[in-house]
Amino acid sequence: MPRLYVLVLSGGAGTRLWPLSRRDRPKQFLELLGERSLLQDTVDRVAEFVPRERIFVVAPPEHRPLIHEQLPELPVDHLVVEPYPRGNAAAVGLAMAALAAFDPDAVVAVLPSDHVVGDRAQFRKVLIAATAAAERGHLVTLGITPERPDTGFGYIEAADRLDIEAPVEVRAVKRFVEKPKRDAAERMVAAGGHYWNAGMFVWRVEEVLRAYEKHLPKTAAAIAALRDAIGSPRYESVLAEVWEETDRTTVDYGIAEKADNVAVVPADIGWRDVGSWARLAEIVSKADNWASGDLVAEDAHDNFVWAPQKTVALIGVEGLVIVDTPDALLITTKERSEDVKTVVDRLKREDREDLL
Amino acid sequence: MPRLYVLVLSGGAGTRLWPLSRRDRPKQFLELLGERSLLQDTVDRVAEFVPRERIFVVAPPEHRPLIHEQLPELPVDHLVVEPYPRGNAAAVGLAMAALAAFDPDAVVAVLPSDHVVGDRAQFRKVLIAATAAAERGHLVTLGITPERPDTGFGYIEAADRLDIEAPVEVRAVKRFVEKPKRDAAERMVAAGGHYWNAGMFVWRVEEVLRAYEKHLPKTAAAIAALRDAIGSPRYESVLAEVWEETDRTTVDYGIAEKADNVAVVPADIGWRDVGSWARLAEIVSKADNWASGDLVAEDAHDNFVWAPQKTVALIGVEGLVIVDTPDALLITTKERSEDVKTVVDRLKREDREDLL
Repeated sequence: MPRLYVLVLSGGAGTRLWPLSRRDRPKQFLELLGERSLLQDTVDRVAEFVPRERIFVVAPPEHRPLIHEQLPELPVDHLVVEPYPRGNAAAVGLAMAALAAFDPDAVVAVLPSDHVVGDRAQFRKVLIAATAAAERGHLVTLGITPERPDTGFGYIEAADRLDIEAPVEVRAVKRFVEKPKRDAAERMVAAGGHYWNAGMFVWRVEEVLRAYEKHLPKTAAAIAALRDAIGSPRYESVLAEVWEETDRTTVDYGIAEKADNVAVVPADIGWRDVGSWARLAEIVSKADNWASGDLVAEDAHDNFVWAPQKTVALIGVEGLVIVDTPDALLITTKERSEDVKTVVDRLKREDREDLL
Repeated sequence: MPRLYVLVLSGGAGTRLWPLSRRDRPKQFLELLGERSLLQDTVDRVAEFVPRERIFVVAPPEHRPLIHEQLPELPVDHLVVEPYPRGNAAAVGLAMAALAAFDPDAVVAVLPSDHVVGDRAQFRKVLIAATAAAERGHLVTLGITPERPDTGFGYIEAADRLDIEAPVEVRAVKRFVEKPKRDAAERMVAAGGHYWNAGMFVWRVEEVLRAYEKHLPKTAAAIAALRDAIGSPRYESVLAEVWEETDRTTVDYGIAEKADNVAVVPADIGWRDVGSWARLAEIVSKADNWASGDLVAEDAHDNFVWAPQKTVALIGVEGLVIVDTPDALLITTKERSEDVKTVVDRLKREDREDLL
């Protein structure tokens, strides 16, 4: 894949994995599925076919030390720092400025750092197809083959197949659908040709910059100013100045839904979102009870236990999510595990900085 | 109350409060209800009207340091050491030998160390009545006024009132009833005149020694040998020799149920057994959720949390018992909390000494 670059997005607080994920260690830095963090897994996955020097990361400044610790081979100038969060359209735009300066002809795959991909071989084929489509001028999104009528994801409705030679078909996009109601999700999954939007994109840098100019002109102006300043001592002051002028939006809303040259590559890649403890529980095991450490279960079923430091005894309980950390212990149900966000919001309102 | 001595029983493993109670720190040593342990509370309760020099404790050797730490005013020769557990009839008999040597005319109240008494003024009146009856030659048991048809306690059926002048009535005992089935418990509570057997006794030492001679002659022989050896260098070797000859039984089965001079003093003293986490939960609070420390509850009700060292977040859970310690975490329901014993038994079978 000549010219394929990778931009790993490492923003986001990952509050739904509290109390393990914290402000200073969001979920992409956690070793949830083995000895490598989700961020390291994301890089490992592409490093099999993309040279290390073509991998970039965008992240807020407070995570810079952690990223260099977890990715020691990442060149310092490949870590693009977003001053503070303004939605991923601004963060991605900032990184596009860096990439455009590095290689104006770059094709780049934009990949979140908190996903799991089970089928790496298929993932590679999907990226080859997406790269082929991107080289033909498309803004390409990966469309995850839906396993169930999930209402927690946005959907992409595919249109006709495009005439692009590739190991996986490439289709035009008819429309993006925001997180649907249950019945709408069921209809889409039953109809076929609908995919989950996982926020993964492949495009030529110059092509997406044209889309920024057209749909997010304020961000495009910031990108242009930054592109000129890259490598000069002015960069930091230009960044500080233009950052607050960028549009507060996401790539999905600000670019993908508005552009008319969007394509989708159906991606049947064993993709999993680690969006909640219940989702992580699905990923780690189908066992009756799953525990990160020593477990004694008496008449207990379908529980998920994260407590690597201690023995956990469960008696007569079902469907619980238990997460133990040195200063906080969460007990909820798999059904309610997304509501961890509510607790985190409450801790924020109460200024419990020690627990965030 | 002239001549009233107190013997506090500090045996028992208290496994049903695992993982907080451990072999080297059973429940009577735990500060479950404030800054004083249950053992300290037991002594404080009687020290209001019994001089310290008339208070004795019987315990296994491994708890000697802990008892002197928690009860620094206890004279060394007031701690009677049972070499290893053989049921409380042997332990009480051993202590009776010590008391008989100390004061042959002693009247002694035998009190477990893991109970809660809410009404201390009434407790004192009950002990005055029991002492009066003991001085008349009765083996007196305290009968707890039952609050519900509990199947977890043995019952005492009272007979006629005895003609003893005292602040609380004293009645003869018709029979002892072992832990009953539900319907039998309901009938007894509805009928009145039935009391919970809490294992608290008051008697003249010489009177109970006669009962040992009659009903537990092997233990009585051991007591006689020990009584002669008290204060001499031979004591330890005599104890080691006679201990294994004692009857393995309890005061309830071995003495109280067999003797014909047993009386009962109805004791409406706010008594509570701390026999399980669910029982402790009842004692500490009627609040919707109770926590020993910082709690964040979202749509969570009727939970009991012991985790003094950390913040606990509960979301959408009900009726749980959660007990956190540095090396073990228990999650069960109030309904199932007595089954902690099952977990402890399993840990014993698996030789998990670190957790016992």
